[in-house]
Amino acid sequence: MLTQADLKRIRALQEKKHRTLTKRFLVQGRKVVSELLLSAWKTERVLATDEGAEFIREIATKKKVPVDILPAHELDRVGTFEQGNELVAVAELPEQGPFRAPATGELVLALDGIRDPRNMGGLLRIADWFGIRQVLASQDSIEVYNPKCVQSTMGSLFRVSVRYARLIDELPKCGALGAKIYIADMDGVPVWGAKLERPAVLVLGSESHGLSQAVRDAMETTVIAVPRVGKAESLNVAMAASALCSEFSRQAR
Amino acid sequence: MLTQADLKRIRALQEKKHRTLTKRFLVQGRKVVSELLLSAWKTERVLATDEGAEFIREIATKKKVPVDILPAHELDRVGTFEQGNELVAVAELPEQGPFRAPATGELVLALDGIRDPRNMGGLLRIADWFGIRQVLASQDSIEVYNPKCVQSTMGSLFRVSVRYARLIDELPKCGALGAKIYIADMDGVPVWGAKLERPAVLVLGSESHGLSQAVRDAMETTVIAVPRVGKAESLNVAMAASALCSEFSRQAR
Repeated sequence: MLTQADLKRIRALQEKKHRTLTKRFLVQGRKVVSELLLSAWKTERVLATDEGAEFIREIATKKKVPVDILPAHELDRVGTFEQGNELVAVAELPEQGPFRAPATGELVLALDGIRDPRNMGGLLRIADWFGIRQVLASQDSIEVYNPKCVQSTMGSLFRVSVRYARLIDELPKCGALGAKIYIADMDGVPVWGAKLERPAVLVLGSESHGLSQAVRDAMETTVIAVPRVGKAESLNVAMAASALCSEFSRQAR
Repeated sequence: MLTQADLKRIRALQEKKHRTLTKRFLVQGRKVVSELLLSAWKTERVLATDEGAEFIREIATKKKVPVDILPAHELDRVGTFEQGNELVAVAELPEQGPFRAPATGELVLALDGIRDPRNMGGLLRIADWFGIRQVLASQDSIEVYNPKCVQSTMGSLFRVSVRYARLIDELPKCGALGAKIYIADMDGVPVWGAKLERPAVLVLGSESHGLSQAVRDAMETTVIAVPRVGKAESLNVAMAASALCSEFSRQAR
């Protein structure tokens, strides 16, 4: 039985400092909670309404994860959805090794200053779709355990490793180990004409900031773009990532 | 000088029924209000804080659009942003002709049941980036004049025509007039291997619903997919659109 102190502790996971402190985070909704329970990640417990519990019981039982039933109004205080808080899991942050340079044939994404949780979540989902296993994020990028971000990944969070580090430390190392460094930027060469080699790192910057010059100057890079045919001022970073990763996949066929 | 009745009328534009009734809608924020004023669309007036007014004055004056200054707390009641409501324009819905089948060499998008405003806005932005001038949306798709959708278009709304009609009426006509009908679906053939012809309509369905079978059965179609390399269950509709439109552009080079 959950005490009020338990609930308070779980509700506190809505905030980053408590996630960092307790090494726990919230996973919500049928789709993403299912993906969590089917993954290798550890789950401490699931809070659910009656209906939520009915949906998740079988898979939670298999994983030996306790399901606590709460009235909807109490779950609304724990969950962060505007409506429909019926399943909230408390997941454990995994122990993670350091970022490693891409191996032979591997493509990894590097994200510079991605602040919007939906963009970050979308980028992980794109990585997962295109078989990218590792994402390097600059330390000013949003934390992937932010509830809106977790939700936007639609479960891809549990299949793609994200490491936070200084790009200016890690990218030159990747370059020195033989990886090509591609920077996505509107001013780059049309990606269709570029011969995309691997191992590679594809660096994507936030829309409003772009990639810092210091990072660009730190190693040899190739700047590539999804050519614009029309008049939009820019393409959202996740949309650009999708088009670029698709072209990487096409050329690797 | 704005009266309380004026403000009430403008605030009501947050709701679809008032937008439809008065043929007006809200455009907000520096970027999108600027794009509105630089476009051929008509603007009734702009409401602004002191700072917002300073930013927009020159371009509004050129266009002979009045700028009314309001205290921030009053603008907060008119605008729909969670914070930073400093510029709210009242724009006029344009008179729009019917949807027309794609002309020689033209690619148009058809959207089936896109309900999420950010997806819809993102799709218009993608259309604009790739030079697509016309979008056909099913009648159960979200209205593009929804404030969240307007915002997500980042101004592309003013460059891409959106027409609402029944896909089952319009798509077979396009087919009969010589357009190829491509349907985006995970079960399709890899887009990289398909020879993409034009004129064409690219049909994109909502993630959760997919394209209705009745529409698929109404004409000859080619089902195409962005091939999955990894394990994500699906790609968001805007991400899929970006990758597919990019491939259409590549092949049309």
